[in-house]
Amino acid sequence: MNKKNVLVAQSGGPTSAINASLAGVLKATINSGQYDRCYGSINGIMGVLSENYLDLTDKASDIPNFINLLTHTPAMYLGSCRFKLPDFKDDDSSYSFIFSQFKKLNIGAFFYIGGNDSMDTVLKLSNYAKEIDSDVKIIGVPKTIDNDLCHTDHTPGFGSAAKYIATSILEIAHDTYIYAVKSVTIVEIMGRDAGWLTAAAALARNSYSSAPHLIYLPEVPFDNDRFLEDVKKELSVRNNVIIAVSEGIRDKDGNYITAAKAMADTFGHQQLSGAGKALEFLVKENINVKVRSVEINVLQRCAAHNASKTDLDESFAQGEKAVSLAEEGKTGCMVILNRTSNTPYTVEYNYAQISGIANEAKSVPTEWINKDGNDITGELVEYLAPLIQGEVQQYYENGLPKYLDVSHLNK
Amino acid sequence: MNKKNVLVAQSGGPTSAINASLAGVLKATINSGQYDRCYGSINGIMGVLSENYLDLTDKASDIPNFINLLTHTPAMYLGSCRFKLPDFKDDDSSYSFIFSQFKKLNIGAFFYIGGNDSMDTVLKLSNYAKEIDSDVKIIGVPKTIDNDLCHTDHTPGFGSAAKYIATSILEIAHDTYIYAVKSVTIVEIMGRDAGWLTAAAALARNSYSSAPHLIYLPEVPFDNDRFLEDVKKELSVRNNVIIAVSEGIRDKDGNYITAAKAMADTFGHQQLSGAGKALEFLVKENINVKVRSVEINVLQRCAAHNASKTDLDESFAQGEKAVSLAEEGKTGCMVILNRTSNTPYTVEYNYAQISGIANEAKSVPTEWINKDGNDITGELVEYLAPLIQGEVQQYYENGLPKYLDVSHLNK
Repeated sequence: MNKKNVLVAQSGGPTSAINASLAGVLKATINSGQYDRCYGSINGIMGVLSENYLDLTDKASDIPNFINLLTHTPAMYLGSCRFKLPDFKDDDSSYSFIFSQFKKLNIGAFFYIGGNDSMDTVLKLSNYAKEIDSDVKIIGVPKTIDNDLCHTDHTPGFGSAAKYIATSILEIAHDTYIYAVKSVTIVEIMGRDAGWLTAAAALARNSYSSAPHLIYLPEVPFDNDRFLEDVKKELSVRNNVIIAVSEGIRDKDGNYITAAKAMADTFGHQQLSGAGKALEFLVKENINVKVRSVEINVLQRCAAHNASKTDLDESFAQGEKAVSLAEEGKTGCMVILNRTSNTPYTVEYNYAQISGIANEAKSVPTEWINKDGNDITGELVEYLAPLIQGEVQQYYENGLPKYLDVSHLNK
Repeated sequence: MNKKNVLVAQSGGPTSAINASLAGVLKATINSGQYDRCYGSINGIMGVLSENYLDLTDKASDIPNFINLLTHTPAMYLGSCRFKLPDFKDDDSSYSFIFSQFKKLNIGAFFYIGGNDSMDTVLKLSNYAKEIDSDVKIIGVPKTIDNDLCHTDHTPGFGSAAKYIATSILEIAHDTYIYAVKSVTIVEIMGRDAGWLTAAAALARNSYSSAPHLIYLPEVPFDNDRFLEDVKKELSVRNNVIIAVSEGIRDKDGNYITAAKAMADTFGHQQLSGAGKALEFLVKENINVKVRSVEINVLQRCAAHNASKTDLDESFAQGEKAVSLAEEGKTGCMVILNRTSNTPYTVEYNYAQISGIANEAKSVPTEWINKDGNDITGELVEYLAPLIQGEVQQYYENGLPKYLDVSHLNK
């Protein structure tokens, strides 16, 4: 039997774990009795359209420790894209080119590692495959720090981002507690529509530090007056108040809380800034106290040196699972993860039809947010805690994390 | 002989290594034949004025692994203050109180761990001690992420901040390289007056990534037009340009480059923001390319989970050295570090009279900045590289770094 090859690509925004899934796909392909080589498409599905590939099987044999280094390298080793395929009923030219490439490379399975938009591509390609009666298996491997994909317990990349956020909040707390003066520190966290990452700030709490003292998620309409009352109340019981806020908080009419809005009342003109700055200005204008805002920036999605071992292990396993699903003849689906127990924490790998996943988003459920809308419940902490457990053994060279050479991307 | 005790305090801004120096003072005191107990003053010299102390010798015997945990806990375990003593010739009331406390606690040596302002306190206290003929030894232990203290090769805390910055730039580079579109990423780094920290961004460069592609230090007057030319030139040779910029860059007249200034020309009103945002706006207005700015925030001074082993080891040793200097009868001085060789990297611990150190600052020398004023020289890289070497064995608990309980600060 002439063995077929597999093709894999990555799409959407970076995470610390997306290469672990790629490593899982590669390892499982190398170990597969059914598939031969593992090709990677550069810059997502764009790489197929421009015939830009890497032979990952070659890389794994040429570069010492390749699969291990790949697992611990942040962001996409294959690069990414933001590209939405048109409906093939309107224009099938991209589709016919992609499937001609599959034929040319003798592809038996295509794996797309990504978030919501990438699952839309998986859906469209698998529908087209059905339409033209192609037997290429099309399978999605989830990835997003936002944890907003439906039908799976949580998403690869989320645990590492959550660990980075909780670590940062704890370290910011130590930084904040040193002065014996009243202060408010506002920490802005990613997550435009879902509050999962901001909720993870709660994991920083321990026996000596209750920071963050207030948590604001995009799922709860934000009210300036109620916020100021919350802050004043916290300042009445402690010196240093630390607040976790999602970049995506909105008022009751759905308008983002930005500095533009907060400052417009005072100075009559617009400022360009995010939610953290907006709340900083609000406190500055209304409460006589030292205040600063900190934006947990892109590092929350690429600080692989502080990744969660649980996250990397699960991301790798989901890559492997994708290959075994293809071997079993599955297509038009995404790998999912079911939590079978919380204590001890155990999961099972499975799959779900892609049609119910693409273009849908999962918010933090109302019952996991406290009544006052300024904190999360113990149940949500129990859900989150297992996901940040374990540290990875990061390789270092010259005092810095040793990551894989990505000069094929940086042109 | 009735053994005397020592008193130690911390002051100024946080670093990841300042508790390592405290741990060094404590360890050396415990091992001293000359001194008995080690007391800590809470919130710097303010703790003496308010009689707020911790018995660190007790802590070391009560809390398992205390000295090791202390070494790896970020920010000040004893808290900090920003307090400048008046000239004792104008008002000696604080001084007489402080020295009455020294008598009450049977103090033989006082150690102040801090930066420039703290060394001013060491100078004033040691001058007063001379004036009143007190034999209490007054010794400074340096600390500042800014690396701007004179008479010492480099300062405790700088190496860990430099390692965090270089790691972040490398991870941001991976994050940036994934899209096949032209982009500019501006990374703002701490250091209001000295460019050492921003220079450390250059350590992120390796065989596959030349980021940061441009580096702007506060030592070089910043010119908007020249900056835009630099960026255009870099964009002509690569897709993704990454720029390291100090928060303290100023124009030729000494005015800080802030978004206020950059935006005033375009919209006629002021924006409140830092140098990174200012350059982001500049690029946005003048070059048609995707641009974003990232502020490496307070985490650069408190991310102990990514500390430099070289830095922690040297910080600890400088704490120990302070105690041995006191035992030898030295006073009115600061511990210093001489680099005796670069390859292999070796240092010697010594001391310098405090009068030549307090209230002076060390900038990056002109000869270590390239001719175009947009990068650093190889000599500076050689100076910096040894300081970020080595990783610390960080303790973890529940998925987060395990730090010491600081509930005595967070009231």
